[in-house]
Amino acid sequence: MRYHKIPDETVRRLVICLRGLLSLSERGYKNISSHNLANSLGLNPWQIRKDFSYFGSFGTPGRGYNIEKLVKQIRKVLKLNAVHKAALVGVGNLGSAVLTYSGFGILGFKIFAAFDNDPKIIGRRVGNIKIEDVSNLQTLQQRKIEIGIITVPCEAAQETFNKLIAAGIKGILSFSPCYKTDRKKVKVITIDIAMDLARLPYYITTRQITNV
Amino acid sequence: MRYHKIPDETVRRLVICLRGLLSLSERGYKNISSHNLANSLGLNPWQIRKDFSYFGSFGTPGRGYNIEKLVKQIRKVLKLNAVHKAALVGVGNLGSAVLTYSGFGILGFKIFAAFDNDPKIIGRRVGNIKIEDVSNLQTLQQRKIEIGIITVPCEAAQETFNKLIAAGIKGILSFSPCYKTDRKKVKVITIDIAMDLARLPYYITTRQITNV
Repeated sequence: MRYHKIPDETVRRLVICLRGLLSLSERGYKNISSHNLANSLGLNPWQIRKDFSYFGSFGTPGRGYNIEKLVKQIRKVLKLNAVHKAALVGVGNLGSAVLTYSGFGILGFKIFAAFDNDPKIIGRRVGNIKIEDVSNLQTLQQRKIEIGIITVPCEAAQETFNKLIAAGIKGILSFSPCYKTDRKKVKVITIDIAMDLARLPYYITTRQITNV
Repeated sequence: MRYHKIPDETVRRLVICLRGLLSLSERGYKNISSHNLANSLGLNPWQIRKDFSYFGSFGTPGRGYNIEKLVKQIRKVLKLNAVHKAALVGVGNLGSAVLTYSGFGILGFKIFAAFDNDPKIIGRRVGNIKIEDVSNLQTLQQRKIEIGIITVPCEAAQETFNKLIAAGIKGILSFSPCYKTDRKKVKVITIDIAMDLARLPYYITTRQITNV
Protein backbone atom coordinates (compact mmCIF):
# COMPACT_ATOMS: atom_id res chain seq x y z
CA MET A 1 0.00 0.00 0.00
CA ARG A 2 1.39 3.38 -1.03
CA TYR A 3 -0.33 5.64 1.46
CA HIS A 4 2.26 8.38 1.33
CA LYS A 5 2.77 9.06 -2.35
CA ILE A 6 -0.66 9.99 -3.59
CA PRO A 7 -0.58 13.04 -5.92
CA ASP A 8 -2.30 16.23 -4.75
CA GLU A 9 -4.91 16.03 -7.50
CA THR A 10 -5.77 12.46 -6.56
CA VAL A 11 -6.27 13.55 -2.95
CA ARG A 12 -8.56 16.31 -4.25
CA ARG A 13 -10.59 13.86 -6.36
CA LEU A 14 -10.76 11.27 -3.57
CA VAL A 15 -12.43 13.87 -1.35
CA ILE A 16 -14.93 14.65 -4.13
CA CYS A 17 -15.59 10.90 -4.53
CA LEU A 18 -15.96 10.44 -0.77
CA ARG A 19 -18.64 13.13 -0.56
CA GLY A 20 -20.42 11.65 -3.58
CA LEU A 21 -20.29 8.13 -2.13
CA LEU A 22 -21.60 9.32 1.26
CA SER A 23 -24.51 10.98 -0.50
CA LEU A 24 -25.24 7.79 -2.53
CA SER A 25 -25.04 5.70 0.63
CA GLU A 26 -27.54 7.99 2.38
CA ARG A 27 -29.93 7.46 -0.50
CA GLY A 28 -29.69 3.68 -0.09
CA TYR A 29 -27.29 2.74 -2.89
CA LYS A 30 -25.03 -0.27 -2.23
CA ASN A 31 -22.86 -0.46 -5.37
CA ILE A 32 -21.79 1.89 -8.12
CA SER A 33 -19.72 1.61 -11.29
CA SER A 34 -16.77 3.94 -11.79
CA HIS A 35 -18.58 5.18 -14.90
CA ASN A 36 -21.72 6.24 -13.02
CA LEU A 37 -19.80 7.62 -10.06
CA ALA A 38 -17.53 9.69 -12.32
CA ASN A 39 -20.47 10.96 -14.37
CA SER A 40 -22.42 12.08 -11.32
CA LEU A 41 -19.39 14.03 -10.09
CA GLY A 42 -18.16 15.49 -13.39
CA LEU A 43 -14.94 13.44 -13.33
CA ASN A 44 -13.34 11.00 -15.81
CA PRO A 45 -14.07 7.28 -15.15
CA TRP A 46 -10.54 6.17 -16.10
CA GLN A 47 -9.10 8.84 -13.85
CA ILE A 48 -10.99 7.74 -10.76
CA ARG A 49 -10.24 4.07 -11.47
CA LYS A 50 -6.59 5.08 -11.50
CA ASP A 51 -7.07 7.12 -8.30
CA PHE A 52 -8.66 4.13 -6.53
CA SER A 53 -5.86 1.85 -7.70
CA TYR A 54 -3.44 3.86 -5.50
CA PHE A 55 -4.86 2.00 -2.54
CA GLY A 56 -5.59 -1.24 -4.35
CA SER A 57 -9.33 -0.91 -4.89
CA PHE A 58 -10.44 -2.31 -8.21
CA GLY A 59 -14.18 -3.01 -8.00
CA THR A 60 -15.96 -6.14 -9.25
CA PRO A 61 -16.58 -6.52 -13.00
CA GLY A 62 -20.30 -6.07 -13.71
CA ARG A 63 -21.12 -4.86 -10.18
CA GLY A 64 -18.74 -1.98 -9.72
CA TYR A 65 -17.56 -0.82 -6.33
CA ASN A 66 -19.18 -1.67 -3.01
CA ILE A 67 -19.95 1.82 -1.68
CA GLU A 68 -19.58 1.10 2.03
CA LYS A 69 -16.23 -0.63 1.52
CA LEU A 70 -14.94 2.13 -0.76
CA VAL A 71 -15.97 4.83 1.75
CA LYS A 72 -14.02 3.00 4.46
CA GLN A 73 -10.96 2.67 2.22
CA ILE A 74 -10.97 6.33 1.18
CA ARG A 75 -11.45 7.47 4.79
CA LYS A 76 -8.51 5.30 5.81
CA VAL A 77 -6.23 6.56 3.02
CA LEU A 78 -7.12 10.21 3.67
CA LYS A 79 -6.90 9.71 7.46
CA LEU A 80 -10.53 10.75 7.80
CA ASN A 81 -11.45 7.78 9.99
CA ALA A 82 -11.00 9.71 13.25
CA VAL A 83 -12.25 13.11 14.45
CA HIS A 84 -9.84 15.95 13.75
CA LYS A 85 -9.83 18.94 16.09
CA ALA A 86 -9.67 22.36 14.47
CA ALA A 87 -9.27 25.94 15.72
CA LEU A 88 -10.37 29.07 13.86
CA VAL A 89 -8.71 32.49 14.02
CA GLY A 90 -10.59 35.64 12.99
CA VAL A 91 -14.27 35.82 13.90
CA GLY A 92 -15.49 38.48 11.47
CA ASN A 93 -18.21 37.80 8.89
CA LEU A 94 -16.29 35.00 7.21
CA GLY A 95 -15.13 33.39 10.45
CA SER A 96 -18.68 33.47 11.85
CA ALA A 97 -19.96 31.83 8.66
CA VAL A 98 -17.37 29.05 8.94
CA LEU A 99 -18.09 28.53 12.66
CA THR A 100 -21.78 27.96 11.97
CA TYR A 101 -21.19 25.79 8.88
CA SER A 102 -22.83 22.41 9.38
CA GLY A 103 -20.94 20.25 6.87
CA PHE A 104 -17.79 19.40 8.83
CA GLY A 105 -19.08 16.54 10.97
CA ILE A 106 -19.69 14.01 8.22
CA LEU A 107 -16.06 14.29 7.08
CA GLY A 108 -14.67 14.00 10.61
CA PHE A 109 -13.95 17.59 11.66
CA LYS A 110 -14.98 19.58 14.67
CA ILE A 111 -14.02 23.15 15.50
CA PHE A 112 -13.06 23.16 19.18
CA ALA A 113 -11.86 26.74 19.59
CA ALA A 114 -12.07 30.18 17.97
CA PHE A 115 -9.92 33.27 18.50
CA ASP A 116 -9.99 36.99 17.78
CA ASN A 117 -8.03 40.06 18.86
CA ASP A 118 -11.02 42.41 19.13
CA PRO A 119 -12.12 42.95 22.77
CA LYS A 120 -15.69 43.45 21.49
CA ILE A 121 -15.68 39.94 20.00
CA ILE A 122 -13.70 38.06 22.67
CA GLY A 123 -16.04 36.34 25.13
CA ARG A 124 -18.98 36.22 22.71
CA ARG A 125 -20.51 32.92 21.67
CA VAL A 126 -20.92 31.81 18.06
CA GLY A 127 -22.80 28.53 17.96
CA ASN A 128 -21.30 26.45 20.78
CA ILE A 129 -17.96 28.19 20.74
CA LYS A 130 -16.88 30.94 23.12
CA ILE A 131 -14.43 33.27 21.37
CA GLU A 132 -11.02 33.46 23.05
CA ASP A 133 -8.25 36.05 22.98
CA VAL A 134 -5.56 35.28 20.36
CA SER A 135 -3.02 35.30 23.21
CA ASN A 136 -4.50 31.89 24.10
CA LEU A 137 -3.32 30.39 20.79
CA GLN A 138 -0.31 28.90 22.54
CA THR A 139 -2.64 26.51 24.39
CA LEU A 140 -3.50 24.65 21.17
CA GLN A 141 -0.70 22.14 21.55
CA GLN A 142 -1.78 20.99 25.00
CA ARG A 143 -5.38 20.85 23.74
CA LYS A 144 -4.20 18.50 20.95
CA ILE A 145 -5.59 20.71 18.18
CA GLU A 146 -3.60 20.14 14.98
CA ILE A 147 -5.63 21.97 12.33
CA GLY A 148 -6.02 25.73 12.00
CA ILE A 149 -8.51 27.73 9.94
CA ILE A 150 -7.46 31.30 9.12
CA THR A 151 -10.20 33.84 8.43
CA VAL A 152 -8.35 37.02 9.39
CA PRO A 153 -7.83 40.05 7.09
CA CYS A 154 -4.81 39.99 4.78
CA GLU A 155 -2.69 42.26 6.98
CA ALA A 156 -3.05 39.92 9.97
CA ALA A 157 -2.44 36.70 8.03
CA GLN A 158 1.33 36.41 8.41
CA GLU A 159 1.30 36.92 12.18
CA THR A 160 -1.51 34.39 12.53
CA PHE A 161 0.42 31.84 10.46
CA ASN A 162 3.49 32.27 12.63
CA LYS A 163 1.51 31.92 15.86
CA LEU A 164 -0.33 28.81 14.67
CA ILE A 165 2.90 27.13 13.61
CA ALA A 166 4.53 28.07 16.92
CA ALA A 167 1.54 26.47 18.65
CA GLY A 168 2.22 23.16 16.90
CA ILE A 169 -0.46 23.35 14.21
CA LYS A 170 0.32 20.86 11.40
CA GLY A 171 -2.26 21.80 8.77
CA ILE A 172 -3.89 25.11 7.87
CA LEU A 173 -6.93 25.97 5.79
CA SER A 174 -6.49 29.62 4.87
CA PHE A 175 -8.90 32.06 3.27
CA SER A 176 -6.05 34.52 2.89
CA PRO A 177 -3.35 34.18 0.22
CA CYS A 178 -1.22 36.79 2.10
CA TYR A 179 1.48 34.75 3.79
CA LYS A 180 4.85 33.10 3.43
CA THR A 181 5.57 29.95 5.31
CA ASP A 182 7.96 27.06 5.64
CA ARG A 183 6.32 24.33 3.63
CA LYS A 184 8.21 21.67 5.48
CA LYS A 185 6.61 22.64 8.77
CA VAL A 186 3.00 22.90 7.77
CA LYS A 187 0.61 21.90 5.00
CA VAL A 188 -1.49 24.82 3.79
CA ILE A 189 -4.62 24.69 1.66
CA THR A 190 -5.77 28.09 0.47
CA ILE A 191 -9.33 28.94 -0.52
CA ASP A 192 -9.16 31.96 -2.80
CA ILE A 193 -12.67 32.89 -3.88
CA ALA A 194 -11.42 35.06 -6.76
CA MET A 195 -9.50 32.14 -8.21
CA ASP A 196 -12.51 29.86 -8.16
CA LEU A 197 -14.58 32.61 -9.76
CA ALA A 198 -11.85 33.05 -12.39
CA ARG A 199 -12.48 29.53 -13.69
CA LEU A 200 -16.03 30.38 -14.78
CA PRO A 201 -15.65 32.67 -17.85
CA TYR A 202 -13.79 30.02 -19.86
CA TYR A 203 -16.81 27.72 -19.69
CA ILE A 204 -19.41 30.42 -20.13
CA THR A 205 -18.00 31.53 -23.44
CA THR A 206 -16.97 28.13 -24.79
CA ARG A 207 -20.16 26.27 -23.78
CA GLN A 208 -18.11 23.35 -22.49
CA ILE A 209 -20.22 22.67 -19.46
CA THR A 210 -19.45 20.19 -16.72
CA ASN A 211 -19.65 20.82 -13.00
CA VAL A 212 -16.85 20.48 -10.49
CA MET B 1 -5.49 27.20 -31.12
CA ARG B 2 -7.67 24.83 -29.09
CA TYR B 3 -9.48 27.29 -26.85
CA HIS B 4 -12.48 25.11 -26.22
CA LYS B 5 -11.09 21.75 -25.18
CA ILE B 6 -8.93 22.56 -22.20
CA PRO B 7 -9.38 20.02 -19.37
CA ASP B 8 -10.93 21.24 -16.10
CA GLU B 9 -7.73 20.61 -14.16
CA THR B 10 -5.70 22.63 -16.66
CA VAL B 11 -8.14 25.53 -16.26
CA ARG B 12 -7.68 25.23 -12.51
CA ARG B 13 -3.89 25.26 -12.81
CA LEU B 14 -3.89 28.13 -15.33
CA VAL B 15 -5.73 30.28 -12.79
CA ILE B 16 -3.15 29.37 -10.13
CA CYS B 17 -0.36 30.25 -12.61
CA LEU B 18 -2.06 33.52 -13.55
CA ARG B 19 -2.22 34.66 -9.94
CA GLY B 20 1.41 33.62 -9.41
CA LEU B 21 2.55 35.46 -12.55
CA LEU B 22 0.64 38.63 -11.58
CA SER B 23 2.36 38.56 -8.22
CA LEU B 24 5.81 38.08 -9.86
CA SER B 25 5.07 40.91 -12.30
CA GLU B 26 4.14 43.23 -9.40
CA ARG B 27 7.50 42.45 -7.82
CA GLY B 28 9.32 43.46 -11.02
CA TYR B 29 10.12 40.07 -12.57
CA LYS B 30 10.19 39.92 -16.38
CA ASN B 31 10.90 36.23 -17.12
CA ILE B 32 10.51 32.95 -15.30
CA SER B 33 11.33 29.33 -16.04
CA SER B 34 8.58 26.71 -15.82
CA HIS B 35 10.69 25.05 -13.14
CA ASN B 36 10.78 28.12 -10.86
CA LEU B 37 7.16 29.04 -11.55
CA ALA B 38 5.99 25.51 -10.76
CA ASN B 39 8.12 25.32 -7.62
CA SER B 40 6.81 28.61 -6.28
CA LEU B 41 3.22 27.40 -6.76
CA GLY B 42 3.60 23.77 -5.62
CA LEU B 43 2.90 22.40 -9.12
CA ASN B 44 4.84 20.07 -11.43
CA PRO B 45 7.04 21.79 -14.07
CA TRP B 46 6.22 19.24 -16.79
CA GLN B 47 2.54 19.61 -16.00
CA ILE B 48 2.47 23.37 -16.43
CA ARG B 49 4.59 23.16 -19.60
CA LYS B 50 1.91 20.80 -20.91
CA ASP B 51 -0.84 23.16 -19.73
CA PHE B 52 0.76 26.12 -21.51
CA SER B 53 1.17 24.07 -24.69
CA TYR B 54 -2.67 23.97 -24.98
CA PHE B 55 -2.48 27.53 -26.26
CA GLY B 56 0.87 27.22 -28.00
CA SER B 57 3.13 28.90 -25.43
CA PHE B 58 6.53 27.21 -25.17
CA GLY B 59 8.95 29.72 -23.61
CA THR B 60 12.50 30.42 -24.75
CA PRO B 61 15.26 27.92 -23.89
CA GLY B 62 17.54 29.44 -21.24
CA ARG B 63 15.26 32.42 -20.55
CA GLY B 64 11.95 30.77 -19.80
CA TYR B 65 8.63 32.50 -20.28
CA ASN B 66 8.10 36.22 -20.72
CA ILE B 67 5.75 36.96 -17.82
CA GLU B 68 3.81 39.83 -19.40
CA LYS B 69 3.18 37.86 -22.59
CA LEU B 70 2.18 34.73 -20.68
CA VAL B 71 -0.26 36.72 -18.49
CA LYS B 72 -1.89 38.11 -21.64
CA GLN B 73 -2.15 34.67 -23.21
CA ILE B 74 -3.66 33.05 -20.10
CA ARG B 75 -6.14 35.93 -19.68
CA LYS B 76 -7.18 35.49 -23.31
CA VAL B 77 -7.58 31.71 -23.05
CA LEU B 78 -9.56 31.95 -19.81
CA LYS B 79 -11.60 34.92 -21.13
CA LEU B 80 -10.32 37.06 -18.27
CA ASN B 81 -9.35 39.97 -20.54
CA ALA B 82 -12.62 41.85 -19.96
CA VAL B 83 -14.57 42.78 -16.83
CA HIS B 84 -17.19 40.23 -15.84
CA LYS B 85 -20.27 41.41 -13.98
CA ALA B 86 -21.42 39.31 -11.05
CA ALA B 87 -24.43 39.29 -8.73
CA LEU B 88 -24.55 37.80 -5.25
CA VAL B 89 -27.56 36.22 -3.56
CA GLY B 90 -27.71 35.83 0.22
CA VAL B 91 -26.24 38.63 2.32
CA GLY B 92 -25.68 36.86 5.62
CA ASN B 93 -22.23 36.54 7.21
CA LEU B 94 -20.73 34.69 4.26
CA GLY B 95 -22.34 36.94 1.63
CA SER B 96 -21.15 40.07 3.46
CA ALA B 97 -17.62 38.65 3.59
CA VAL B 98 -17.67 37.96 -0.17
CA LEU B 99 -19.11 41.43 -0.94
CA THR B 100 -16.26 43.14 0.89
CA TYR B 101 -13.55 40.83 -0.50
CA SER B 102 -10.93 42.88 -2.32
CA GLY B 103 -9.31 40.28 -4.58
CA PHE B 104 -11.79 40.19 -7.48
CA GLY B 105 -10.63 43.24 -9.46
CA ILE B 106 -7.22 41.96 -10.50
CA LEU B 107 -8.81 38.92 -12.14
CA GLY B 108 -11.47 40.96 -13.92
CA PHE B 109 -14.57 40.61 -11.74
CA LYS B 110 -16.87 43.15 -10.19
CA ILE B 111 -19.98 42.48 -8.12
CA PHE B 112 -22.67 44.81 -9.44
CA ALA B 113 -25.67 43.67 -7.42
CA ALA B 114 -26.61 41.78 -4.25
CA PHE B 115 -29.93 40.29 -3.18
CA ASP B 116 -31.63 38.97 -0.06
CA ASN B 117 -35.15 38.02 0.99
CA ASP B 118 -34.94 39.47 4.51
CA PRO B 119 -36.73 42.85 4.82
CA LYS B 120 -34.25 43.80 7.55
CA ILE B 121 -31.35 43.37 5.09
CA ILE B 122 -32.95 44.73 1.89
CA GLY B 123 -32.03 48.39 1.37
CA ARG B 124 -28.87 48.21 3.51
CA ARG B 125 -25.47 48.99 2.02
CA VAL B 126 -22.51 46.62 2.14
CA GLY B 127 -19.47 48.35 0.66
CA ASN B 128 -20.77 50.15 -2.42
CA ILE B 129 -23.67 47.80 -2.98
CA LYS B 130 -27.27 48.45 -1.94
CA ILE B 131 -28.99 45.15 -1.17
CA GLU B 132 -32.05 44.47 -3.35
CA ASP B 133 -35.10 42.25 -2.89
CA VAL B 134 -34.68 38.81 -4.51
CA SER B 135 -37.78 39.58 -6.56
CA ASN B 136 -35.49 41.87 -8.59
CA LEU B 137 -33.38 38.90 -9.75
CA GLN B 138 -35.26 38.85 -13.03
CA THR B 139 -33.61 42.17 -13.95
CA LEU B 140 -30.18 40.53 -14.25
CA GLN B 141 -30.55 39.75 -17.93
CA GLN B 142 -31.24 43.35 -18.93
CA ARG B 143 -28.37 44.46 -16.69
CA LYS B 144 -26.08 42.08 -18.64
CA ILE B 145 -24.96 40.23 -15.50
CA GLU B 146 -23.92 36.69 -16.42
CA ILE B 147 -22.27 35.39 -13.25
CA GLY B 148 -24.03 34.53 -9.99
CA ILE B 149 -22.58 33.92 -6.54
CA ILE B 150 -24.76 31.89 -4.18
CA THR B 151 -24.25 32.39 -0.44
CA VAL B 152 -27.72 31.40 0.79
CA PRO B 153 -28.43 28.66 3.36
CA CYS B 154 -28.80 25.10 2.04
CA GLU B 155 -32.60 25.12 2.15
CA ALA B 156 -32.78 28.18 -0.12
CA ALA B 157 -30.14 26.99 -2.60
CA GLN B 158 -32.36 25.17 -5.11
CA GLU B 159 -34.82 28.04 -5.47
CA THR B 160 -31.93 30.48 -5.91
CA PHE B 161 -30.36 28.30 -8.60
CA ASN B 162 -33.65 28.12 -10.49
CA LYS B 163 -34.17 31.89 -10.31
CA LEU B 164 -30.62 32.69 -11.44
CA ILE B 165 -30.90 30.35 -14.41
CA ALA B 166 -34.30 31.81 -15.32
CA ALA B 167 -32.65 35.25 -15.21
CA GLY B 168 -30.13 34.17 -17.83
CA ILE B 169 -27.13 33.58 -15.56
CA LYS B 170 -24.51 31.45 -17.36
CA GLY B 171 -22.05 30.68 -14.59
CA ILE B 172 -22.50 30.18 -10.84
CA LEU B 173 -20.05 30.12 -7.97
CA SER B 174 -21.87 28.35 -5.16
CA PHE B 175 -20.99 27.95 -1.50
CA SER B 176 -23.82 25.47 -1.14
CA PRO B 177 -23.63 21.89 -2.39
CA CYS B 178 -27.43 21.59 -1.97
CA TYR B 179 -28.79 21.80 -5.51
CA LYS B 180 -29.57 19.91 -8.67
CA THR B 181 -29.25 21.67 -11.98
CA ASP B 182 -29.15 21.18 -15.72
CA ARG B 183 -25.45 21.12 -16.48
CA LYS B 184 -26.06 22.07 -20.07
CA LYS B 185 -27.61 25.37 -19.08
CA VAL B 186 -25.11 26.62 -16.56
CA LYS B 187 -21.56 26.03 -15.37
CA VAL B 188 -21.34 25.64 -11.61
CA ILE B 189 -18.23 25.80 -9.45
CA THR B 190 -18.84 24.80 -5.84
CA ILE B 191 -16.72 25.90 -2.92
CA ASP B 192 -17.23 23.35 -0.15
CA ILE B 193 -15.15 24.33 2.84
CA ALA B 194 -15.45 20.89 4.42
CA MET B 195 -14.01 19.24 1.33
CA ASP B 196 -10.99 21.52 1.27
CA LEU B 197 -10.48 20.87 4.96
CA ALA B 198 -10.77 17.13 4.29
CA ARG B 199 -7.60 17.22 2.15
CA LEU B 200 -5.43 18.24 5.13
CA PRO B 201 -5.18 15.13 7.34
CA TYR B 202 -3.56 13.03 4.60
CA TYR B 203 -0.60 15.40 4.51
CA ILE B 204 -0.41 15.96 8.24
CA THR B 205 0.05 12.30 8.98
CA THR B 206 2.21 11.39 6.01
CA ARG B 207 4.54 14.42 6.20
CA GLN B 208 4.33 14.91 2.44
CA ILE B 209 4.14 18.67 2.51
CA THR B 210 3.54 20.90 -0.49
CA ASN B 211 1.11 23.81 -0.66
CA VAL B 212 -1.76 24.22 -3.07
